[in-house]
Amino acid sequence: VTALSSIPPTYDDVLAARARIAPHTLRTPLLALAPPHPTAPRLLVKLEPLQRTGSFKFRGASNAVRLAVEEGFRHVVACSSGNHAQGVAEAARLFGIAATIVMPADAPPVKRRRTEASGARVIPYDRMTEDRDALAARVLEEEGGRFVHPYEDPAVIAGQGTLGLEIAEDCDALGLAPDAVLVPCSGGGLTAGVSLVIARRLPGARIYAVEPEGFDDYARSLAAGTRLANPSPGGSVCDALLARTPGRLGFEVNRPRLAGALAVSDEAALRAVGFAFERLRVVVEPGGAVALAAALEGLANVPPEGAVVVVLSGGNVEEATLARSVAAYRAEPFGAAPPPA
Amino acid sequence: VTALSSIPPTYDDVLAARARIAPHTLRTPLLALAPPHPTAPRLLVKLEPLQRTGSFKFRGASNAVRLAVEEGFRHVVACSSGNHAQGVAEAARLFGIAATIVMPADAPPVKRRRTEASGARVIPYDRMTEDRDALAARVLEEEGGRFVHPYEDPAVIAGQGTLGLEIAEDCDALGLAPDAVLVPCSGGGLTAGVSLVIARRLPGARIYAVEPEGFDDYARSLAAGTRLANPSPGGSVCDALLARTPGRLGFEVNRPRLAGALAVSDEAALRAVGFAFERLRVVVEPGGAVALAAALEGLANVPPEGAVVVVLSGGNVEEATLARSVAAYRAEPFGAAPPPA
Repeated sequence: VTALSSIPPTYDDVLAARARIAPHTLRTPLLALAPPHPTAPRLLVKLEPLQRTGSFKFRGASNAVRLAVEEGFRHVVACSSGNHAQGVAEAARLFGIAATIVMPADAPPVKRRRTEASGARVIPYDRMTEDRDALAARVLEEEGGRFVHPYEDPAVIAGQGTLGLEIAEDCDALGLAPDAVLVPCSGGGLTAGVSLVIARRLPGARIYAVEPEGFDDYARSLAAGTRLANPSPGGSVCDALLARTPGRLGFEVNRPRLAGALAVSDEAALRAVGFAFERLRVVVEPGGAVALAAALEGLANVPPEGAVVVVLSGGNVEEATLARSVAAYRAEPFGAAPPPA
Repeated sequence: VTALSSIPPTYDDVLAARARIAPHTLRTPLLALAPPHPTAPRLLVKLEPLQRTGSFKFRGASNAVRLAVEEGFRHVVACSSGNHAQGVAEAARLFGIAATIVMPADAPPVKRRRTEASGARVIPYDRMTEDRDALAARVLEEEGGRFVHPYEDPAVIAGQGTLGLEIAEDCDALGLAPDAVLVPCSGGGLTAGVSLVIARRLPGARIYAVEPEGFDDYARSLAAGTRLANPSPGGSVCDALLARTPGRLGFEVNRPRLAGALAVSDEAALRAVGFAFERLRVVVEPGGAVALAAALEGLANVPPEGAVVVVLSGGNVEEATLARSVAAYRAEPFGAAPPPA
């Protein structure tokens, strides 16, 4: 809906983003689950639900909103089902400007409530019948402001990459070269930011995007070499991962850097949410747990003596979904799960 | 039930404990909630539910069990309603010896299940009619082993103190001298370990023990100058904080170091559990949330320009209790709560 840079961000852009947002973001812990189960690789879990606003989205949003403020904007507009919305809303509050969020009417109530708690105006729309971009364009035309795309924006991708810097530094501190890094993937902005850093700093690690089954546009796009769309606009419990197609900028970054994409069932994502509650005491939402699910199901094919980094990307979940997830995990724990942590 | 050292631990014992257990414990993050609400002091939250076994108890247990192994023991025995049980059970599993836990029959099922998941034998007893010490003594007589008391043991207190070292170091790194440090308190072992360190490293900080209303034996004992008991053995939702009376060793450490003790209602503890879920995405149990509740209710009387450190001490909670807590928090948020984190 506005002209965006057509140049993908670089590793140096991630370093610049970190200098810009580090005073405002939390350096989230990388939890080493130890000792590993004899038949499973060592698991290192990036606890991004602890991030401000409960997801990695605050990183990219705060970088983009901060730049918007420096450019003189007093209003930002975003389209988001929830986590990007909260990131943009809270960044706008932090930097003292207004925010308008165009949000699907079926977004989890907890996400709308938390977005409004940061002072943003929320404009709901029907995911099946209305055009969110047209709604956002109308707001921008009538009121002015800077549009903050959730992933088709170099500043947003660079901000998400700061999560990758922390992973690389913490692996260095542990003296550990992971075999694989697994990242939840929707439009591909987080994956792109992380892969910019990991490909450079931990070149021995295979990087995987992880998607819900049925929303595997990244897997099919990587295989085809061109960006393909999902057949359905909604219907997964992973409400954070419903982008129709890979973003163009992120796909340029990811295509040469990813080892591939992995898909997990909604059921496995829920069980991973239950695992995080039972074993890590961390609240994670289904879409934020897909990389953990993939690792616990052994999809990355890392040998027992190896190590896998998984990103838990967000924690904005309804209690009812959490309770359902815990029950699903207890009924069927992951076979290769490490001992109590 | 066994001869225990009658000498309280020292700051140097805490340093020795850290050298012993650091390879096995998690250095948990101190989360700085920023920016603070204009009328509330800055809040720093120690995320100990992320600790192995979900509570600080693993610190003291692993120090004591490791020492027991070095003394040649192949079996440890403990009495605990749950968190100490899990700590001892997992420490025994880690160091390759057996564990027996005498546990009240009304302990939360999640705690019994997690204790058994670490391979320990659990002997249930009736809190009202049976003598847990006699049960433990019989096991020790028949099978041999080392008893690990939850707080009347210098090795346990020294292990808990490692949490205080991390707080002091993180405050130093932030360039921050907190006005108050609030610690959940039952027998007083965690409070003693933390106060040993904080009184030395952050001498400007007032240290408070925080208890559930009706179980304020520490407050009354500090006021009386001698150890007094609670009238009731049970009945608070804070199942982790039901010790009848302050431990002797901890009381000797705490008495000259504490500014006092604060009491919070069960309702406030539940609302603090809801706050942690909604705002921090961390799972905490009611007993582990009393210090947070006290801070959010402003009980430490710290001015808006000051800073308060609160310890979240454990996260082993039933989903039903969590859901009830979130509902209570939404119905009545804390007035002085900081903005969305």
